[in-house]
Amino acid sequence: MGPVRLALLAVVALAAAGEAVYIPYNTSAGVVAGKLNVHVVPHTHDDVGWLKTVDQYYVGSNNSIQGGMCAERSGFAHPGAAQGREPQVHLCRAGILPEMVEEPERHDQGYREGAHQLWTVGIDTTLGHKFIKEEFGQIPRIGWQIDPFGHSAVQAYLLGAEVGFDAFYFFRIDYQDRDTRKGTKELEVVWRGSKSFGSSADIFAGIFPQNYEPPPGDFYFEVDDDSPVVQDDPLLFDYNVEERVNGFVAAALAQANITRTNHIMFTMGTDFKYQYAESWFRNMDKLIHYVNKDGRINALYSTPSIYTDAKYAANEQWPLKTNDFFPYADNPNAYWTGYFTSRSALKRYVRMMSGYYLAARQLEFFKGKSKLGPTTDYLGDALALAQHHDAVTGTEKQHVANDYAKRLSIGYTRAQELVSTSLACLTELGSKPHCSSPTTKFSQCLLLNVTYCPPSEMDFSKGKSLVVLVYNSLGWKRQDVLRVPVFSDSIVVHDSEGREVESQLLPIASASLNIRDKHVKAYLGTSPGVTPKFWLAFPVSVPPLGFNTYFVSSMKKSASVSSKSTVYSSQGSEYSSLQVGQGNLKLQYNAAGAFSLYSDSKTLIEANFEQKYKYYIGQDGNGSDPQASGAYIFRPNGTVPIKTDSQVPLTVLRGPIVDEVHQQINSWIYQITRVYKGKDYVETEFIVGPIPTDDGNGKEVATEIVTNMATNKTFYTDSSGRDFIKRIRDYRSEWKIEVHQPIAGNYYPVNLGIYVEDGNKELSVLVDRSIGGSSINDGQIELMLHRRLLHDDGRGVAEALNETVCLGNQCEGLIIEGKYYLKIDPQGEGSRWRRTFGQEIYSPLLLAFSEQDGGNWANSHTPKFSAMDPTYSLPDNVALLTLQELEDGSVLLRFAHLYEAGEHKDLSALASVDLKRVFPDKKIGKIVETSLSANQERAAMEKKRLKWKVQGPPADEKVIRGGPVDPSKLVIELGPMEIRTFIVSFERSISGKQLL
Amino acid sequence: MGPVRLALLAVVALAAAGEAVYIPYNTSAGVVAGKLNVHVVPHTHDDVGWLKTVDQYYVGSNNSIQGGMCAERSGFAHPGAAQGREPQVHLCRAGILPEMVEEPERHDQGYREGAHQLWTVGIDTTLGHKFIKEEFGQIPRIGWQIDPFGHSAVQAYLLGAEVGFDAFYFFRIDYQDRDTRKGTKELEVVWRGSKSFGSSADIFAGIFPQNYEPPPGDFYFEVDDDSPVVQDDPLLFDYNVEERVNGFVAAALAQANITRTNHIMFTMGTDFKYQYAESWFRNMDKLIHYVNKDGRINALYSTPSIYTDAKYAANEQWPLKTNDFFPYADNPNAYWTGYFTSRSALKRYVRMMSGYYLAARQLEFFKGKSKLGPTTDYLGDALALAQHHDAVTGTEKQHVANDYAKRLSIGYTRAQELVSTSLACLTELGSKPHCSSPTTKFSQCLLLNVTYCPPSEMDFSKGKSLVVLVYNSLGWKRQDVLRVPVFSDSIVVHDSEGREVESQLLPIASASLNIRDKHVKAYLGTSPGVTPKFWLAFPVSVPPLGFNTYFVSSMKKSASVSSKSTVYSSQGSEYSSLQVGQGNLKLQYNAAGAFSLYSDSKTLIEANFEQKYKYYIGQDGNGSDPQASGAYIFRPNGTVPIKTDSQVPLTVLRGPIVDEVHQQINSWIYQITRVYKGKDYVETEFIVGPIPTDDGNGKEVATEIVTNMATNKTFYTDSSGRDFIKRIRDYRSEWKIEVHQPIAGNYYPVNLGIYVEDGNKELSVLVDRSIGGSSINDGQIELMLHRRLLHDDGRGVAEALNETVCLGNQCEGLIIEGKYYLKIDPQGEGSRWRRTFGQEIYSPLLLAFSEQDGGNWANSHTPKFSAMDPTYSLPDNVALLTLQELEDGSVLLRFAHLYEAGEHKDLSALASVDLKRVFPDKKIGKIVETSLSANQERAAMEKKRLKWKVQGPPADEKVIRGGPVDPSKLVIELGPMEIRTFIVSFERSISGKQLL
Repeated sequence: MGPVRLALLAVVALAAAGEAVYIPYNTSAGVVAGKLNVHVVPHTHDDVGWLKTVDQYYVGSNNSIQGGMCAERSGFAHPGAAQGREPQVHLCRAGILPEMVEEPERHDQGYREGAHQLWTVGIDTTLGHKFIKEEFGQIPRIGWQIDPFGHSAVQAYLLGAEVGFDAFYFFRIDYQDRDTRKGTKELEVVWRGSKSFGSSADIFAGIFPQNYEPPPGDFYFEVDDDSPVVQDDPLLFDYNVEERVNGFVAAALAQANITRTNHIMFTMGTDFKYQYAESWFRNMDKLIHYVNKDGRINALYSTPSIYTDAKYAANEQWPLKTNDFFPYADNPNAYWTGYFTSRSALKRYVRMMSGYYLAARQLEFFKGKSKLGPTTDYLGDALALAQHHDAVTGTEKQHVANDYAKRLSIGYTRAQELVSTSLACLTELGSKPHCSSPTTKFSQCLLLNVTYCPPSEMDFSKGKSLVVLVYNSLGWKRQDVLRVPVFSDSIVVHDSEGREVESQLLPIASASLNIRDKHVKAYLGTSPGVTPKFWLAFPVSVPPLGFNTYFVSSMKKSASVSSKSTVYSSQGSEYSSLQVGQGNLKLQYNAAGAFSLYSDSKTLIEANFEQKYKYYIGQDGNGSDPQASGAYIFRPNGTVPIKTDSQVPLTVLRGPIVDEVHQQINSWIYQITRVYKGKDYVETEFIVGPIPTDDGNGKEVATEIVTNMATNKTFYTDSSGRDFIKRIRDYRSEWKIEVHQPIAGNYYPVNLGIYVEDGNKELSVLVDRSIGGSSINDGQIELMLHRRLLHDDGRGVAEALNETVCLGNQCEGLIIEGKYYLKIDPQGEGSRWRRTFGQEIYSPLLLAFSEQDGGNWANSHTPKFSAMDPTYSLPDNVALLTLQELEDGSVLLRFAHLYEAGEHKDLSALASVDLKRVFPDKKIGKIVETSLSANQERAAMEKKRLKWKVQGPPADEKVIRGGPVDPSKLVIELGPMEIRTFIVSFERSISGKQLL
Repeated sequence: MGPVRLALLAVVALAAAGEAVYIPYNTSAGVVAGKLNVHVVPHTHDDVGWLKTVDQYYVGSNNSIQGGMCAERSGFAHPGAAQGREPQVHLCRAGILPEMVEEPERHDQGYREGAHQLWTVGIDTTLGHKFIKEEFGQIPRIGWQIDPFGHSAVQAYLLGAEVGFDAFYFFRIDYQDRDTRKGTKELEVVWRGSKSFGSSADIFAGIFPQNYEPPPGDFYFEVDDDSPVVQDDPLLFDYNVEERVNGFVAAALAQANITRTNHIMFTMGTDFKYQYAESWFRNMDKLIHYVNKDGRINALYSTPSIYTDAKYAANEQWPLKTNDFFPYADNPNAYWTGYFTSRSALKRYVRMMSGYYLAARQLEFFKGKSKLGPTTDYLGDALALAQHHDAVTGTEKQHVANDYAKRLSIGYTRAQELVSTSLACLTELGSKPHCSSPTTKFSQCLLLNVTYCPPSEMDFSKGKSLVVLVYNSLGWKRQDVLRVPVFSDSIVVHDSEGREVESQLLPIASASLNIRDKHVKAYLGTSPGVTPKFWLAFPVSVPPLGFNTYFVSSMKKSASVSSKSTVYSSQGSEYSSLQVGQGNLKLQYNAAGAFSLYSDSKTLIEANFEQKYKYYIGQDGNGSDPQASGAYIFRPNGTVPIKTDSQVPLTVLRGPIVDEVHQQINSWIYQITRVYKGKDYVETEFIVGPIPTDDGNGKEVATEIVTNMATNKTFYTDSSGRDFIKRIRDYRSEWKIEVHQPIAGNYYPVNLGIYVEDGNKELSVLVDRSIGGSSINDGQIELMLHRRLLHDDGRGVAEALNETVCLGNQCEGLIIEGKYYLKIDPQGEGSRWRRTFGQEIYSPLLLAFSEQDGGNWANSHTPKFSAMDPTYSLPDNVALLTLQELEDGSVLLRFAHLYEAGEHKDLSALASVDLKRVFPDKKIGKIVETSLSANQERAAMEKKRLKWKVQGPPADEKVIRGGPVDPSKLVIELGPMEIRTFIVSFERSISGKQLL
């Protein structure tokens, strides 16, 4: 039986002799067999920050932009500011609350919309599900992602196999796909998103036939909506019950015509509705009452959960869906592939903060979480907020993007304090358990990307030296090269054992200094002061889940000072002789200043290729065709190659650590290509912007790597950073596409990387943030780096994506600084680099700076530390996703297998983690495996989960999963792509919360 | 102590360690002595029908015109459709109800806005006050007329002296008046509206300083309003408590600066607000809490009632206000004097229905009210609705005007059934008490004004004769001339004693037949069928509160058939010899076809005068000055005299009953002037329209009567149909006016009449509906008859006042048919005609038609009846305002003295009504004098009423009022202008409810 509105007895004043007669609306209908059942699902969709900021929506301010929303009912959940909560459909709204309280059956439609881009945050629905459990006592089982602009396969199977959902519902799929599915009644399917897990990760996926709004025929019941209310009072004019019932029945029959089983769902709501819920419920009450009185069909108050059960009970065999729902287009010329790159700086900021948050939570656990001191909670909240589908996507208004950034900044500031304190506690000798106020002060350098780091820019001549503590949040020992800006040209670096470390000084490019000046002023409001002259580069080695310490000091007239790079300007025909690379990997340049040959002496790979820039002109949407390129939509109107001015010389820096090639591509693109001696990949740093718009054109800047590889239209992009999915140009694997947008329609989100292969080798490119990418021609890969557009694209944000940075009133187009990484591997070997180095990109070494007078650091500080057994590290195919102390002192632990089934000949195997060696100093009292969101025990979840029937013969599957954890052995096994989540309780008697 | 919001504990999550701390907002403040007290008065203002109809506002439909409003909470009061209710601020609104239920202290601000134009309905607030008493158990004591466009003196003193209000509050007064009052702190005054009652009718009048909205500084808290909400959560961005408190205090100090005493009122609301009341109350809670915490001033939830008591308690002497607040202007060129005439047809319809309702209620009482049969209730509701300040004013949208008319039509149809049944019961011999289904069928002719009356258009040749039952709702015996259209030219009329009655046949003008054809088709959807040829006119004589019967039949070749009028066409120079009038009164025409001489052989009055037409061009509001003439505002842009085409002849009809002069003034104005043999006034019927607009100009058509009287800028217009108020051109008695609009700024509402005097004589003009009028030049009177305009005047209705009548798709401008009446009396004698004939205009004889075969009517019917003692009639200076059976069988009775103190040398005296002779057949068991609205006993009301102190010396007053009613004598005395209201219970043992 469906939910019933018992609390409110509705009333109809009957005509006749002036006596009012009261009759209740009967909304008690459940499912009725043999009839078409219309599941009336009331819902609203309130973006946590889009046209207004989350707080503005919450309190109902800034209404000149958009009307009200929540009339601020305090005491209810604010999705960001309150402790320990993450974004979800905002329930605090003025009108809906009384109804929700009144009718708890109506709740479960409100579950959070998953983020789909940034997996390491995206899969962590823990906060939201914890909130739902605490506030409503519910464990959600249905996903409701009605508005996100595409849906990833990983999201689908994680929600199914790991979170335990039985179904999820969404709307945005390609319009051609939708049309096809309508004809074949395949809008409701079983989605098998995982090659590794096969049918065990199946989930029921319901795609709405038209939108996430009420069905056609005027069924919008916001107080101000135009739809005619159901007027059933015969004493008043405009009685319209029959007309409204007929419209409802007609809409139901039309939808039934494209839907399997005799159950259809009416999504009764849309964006920012239910400000006054009674208006909706009143009219739905009447519709249900009179429709059922009519009798042709059965209407019932329902929820996605009830609807799902009804679908399941129908015992139908459902069509199978594999792959994903990217890219999304709602019109022939409207591919929502622009947002893959929109607000690239915000995307990078979110990515940086995600990695930092992961590390900071580890350090919070090591120190012991304290409610009194700074915590990572605000950063967690800010990151969670930023997962909203109008946040990291870049489809919010500028002031809202600023708000998201501000929240990240506040969260970072707080987390930074926690990190500094925790590191100080970990490093100080004799620091007590529950260390809270260590004397050592660490500072950190968030603005290293604009060459700004006050601690390292110190004057070493006064006898002080810089202490660089390097924290590694990965479960593996790690070798890397650090780079910090320094002022002095006479520098020596020592490791924690006092050994001199080879280092290299690289003159800072004036391009970098310009950016530094401008952005320090713009962001901090002050001049950066002293100008550093060099990047100091030196290799470091850091234990897993631990740190090492390095010391940078000045040394007069010593032979062993840091090597200055040789600097060499090359021009024109000289290029062809130009080769960089001190190790296995060498890059050869051609006469045009572009790469010409990639050679790796270890793998014997040799490949000709070219790297260059171009931009697309953003369609302006003027004239008869109003679809512009904008924050959501990528609609190129011509491609313009960017030719490097051959008069501007290449600058080559060489040294013992790294070779760099600096190229001023044009007046607004600067590029540094790096080949590290000990690394076998190419690092490319790009500085793009301000993109000029004085020609009246918006521009979308891409870089492309062109090879002669025969890739047969095929390329691979990651799905939410996990699985790689095969893409074929101008082709969709499950439906026939009519190609209108040969470029935009082949773009896919690149969160981790993109690669192509030709049978002999793989060309992989990894990215430092989510961006859009494609392979528009065989052998080619392109990445969209930055977009600056002058027109709104008509999807509601009502602003052009035209980001600027202002100094006072002087505003210039935003500059994007970033990196991508390129490697060519023998066929079959690329995945190891993509997986391992992908982890390193996501979790860069965390640097904390202090200083010492003379050499006294070692007297009072532990220079090196690992939380794990010194002889242990995680297997190459396993990452520690989460290590987080919970409020009750227990610890949330997540391990992820990094390889898909069959992805790598060795590494796609069952892996094991020896938990005792991960926590050598602690005794694990209890370990409970849970769902991915940690809101229920794994076993209970699996027991409950529905098993859907699929059309066609059963698949021949061999799924590898780790077995149960033996509490005495404490070894965690992980099959390919498996993520396992545990809540671990340590016995306090051993060491309390404090590790040291 | 003020009302307190105890039910909701508001919550602030304090910052710091993540623990939410809950604190309540303290809104318990009452008045604080020694501080400035800000009375925060939450209110909304929901026009019962303006841009949408009352039902559309009620159910929240037709939202494309205007957003929602009431989200239809059934079970709460619909102001029109439910039984026995009249318009008032619509409380059913979505959001406000829960708050109202929660806090009954908030209720009394919502009392109805009185109508101010049509007194006989306007003073009858019985239904509304009954509703308030039944639903809320309250007797209102404060008026809240925030939006009406001007305020009459009569309204003010009736509310005070007769309804028992202590104060009333409003906003719309002339902007110059307001500015003056601000400077002198005279926005709050004691208003002495009555010359007859003097200080005994004083009422406290509070005029809002700016509008009826929150004070300046952004204090609008509808969910979608732009004002910043009070953001007091330090965990969220944009905390603004200090800023908002400062703004509130600043607004309060500014208002205190123009207000006496340390009490000011903040009117927290405006049109159509509080859709979601919590949003308002939430923010007001916070403002009160934080403002009082701040301490500079004291803010409290208040009501107009609490505010009034605080003002009274201050024991201040208040400035005195006499006179009224007409006309209203909100800008130099924006005099709201257009609405005095706007929708003149609707105004006439309301007036006709008001008179009919008065008569029908009498007949309902005579028959005995039955819940089963038809009643007058719907008509009462429709009329009450039509009193809304956007209804009869003509400032609603066309479709809403149609809705008001439709309701009147439905109400009329039901009342007509009741009337027919009641008359049949009264006339049928042997009809039993509680007569409900008499056999005699009566029909009535609503469309007589377009010459359409099917019962009288019968074919008398078949031996049937027409029975005309004539009902007189006045308390006096009455002589009048009836006119019905007939087909035959051989007609004889007999009275109830079988005597032949002299009659006259007047050929129906083709102008009238054209109108008849068109409007019968337009309104009834059918052709009128047979075309009558003549108006049959014959004199009738009807007893007070009773009827007489006349019989119209065909008679071949008899000497005594109805006289055919002599018809005579006159042209040019012939006019000067033209004189009409068979009795004392004669009219002479001049060569131009206009009146030239008025002579009354009885009073020996002779006066030269001219009557003519003109139109004002409505300002179009284009260009730099956007103020157009429109539904609200009269802004003439030039005056155009309408010259009669001297080629079109006058037509003169003469006969024994009446002389008529027909004039085609121009192609769209037709006029008939009538002088009845037995009457000493001139009746002018005008047919104006369709006003042509093909020259692109809107036009406002006026007629003017020009004499050579030396009137010294002075004229008199009625106040709500009761007192006459002296008007002086370009002058206001209490403040200095700067004249920007010499025409529009001198217009006043004319409900009953307008007159001028020169010391020797009085020229009076009485009207058949409320219209605008003035005396623009000395000796002149003008009446605005019809307005057709092409531009909206920017006061919200967003439509031009451009009324049309359509036949199919063919629409033409609306034609207005109406009458005015003119008389010239010796100085000091005009009032008798104005008062007595004014009652006759308001209460025309009610005609009911039946037919008889042969002469059998008298065998089974009483032909003549009076409810009163046959030898009794009411005194000349007293009218029976109300005779209405209440639900419990008791009777509501109102008598009104018709003269002001000093108005007439004889008739301004104390008058007496002998109730036993009014109800000779009934025994009065109990008589209770009540307030005008019958919601409390008069004695209790007078005891409670506050006595306000006035600045200056006490007035020298001699107020005459009737004394208490001795239950044994049952004589009701009435002093000048007194209205006394009684609830009378009859002893059922005598005759039950049935009179016969």
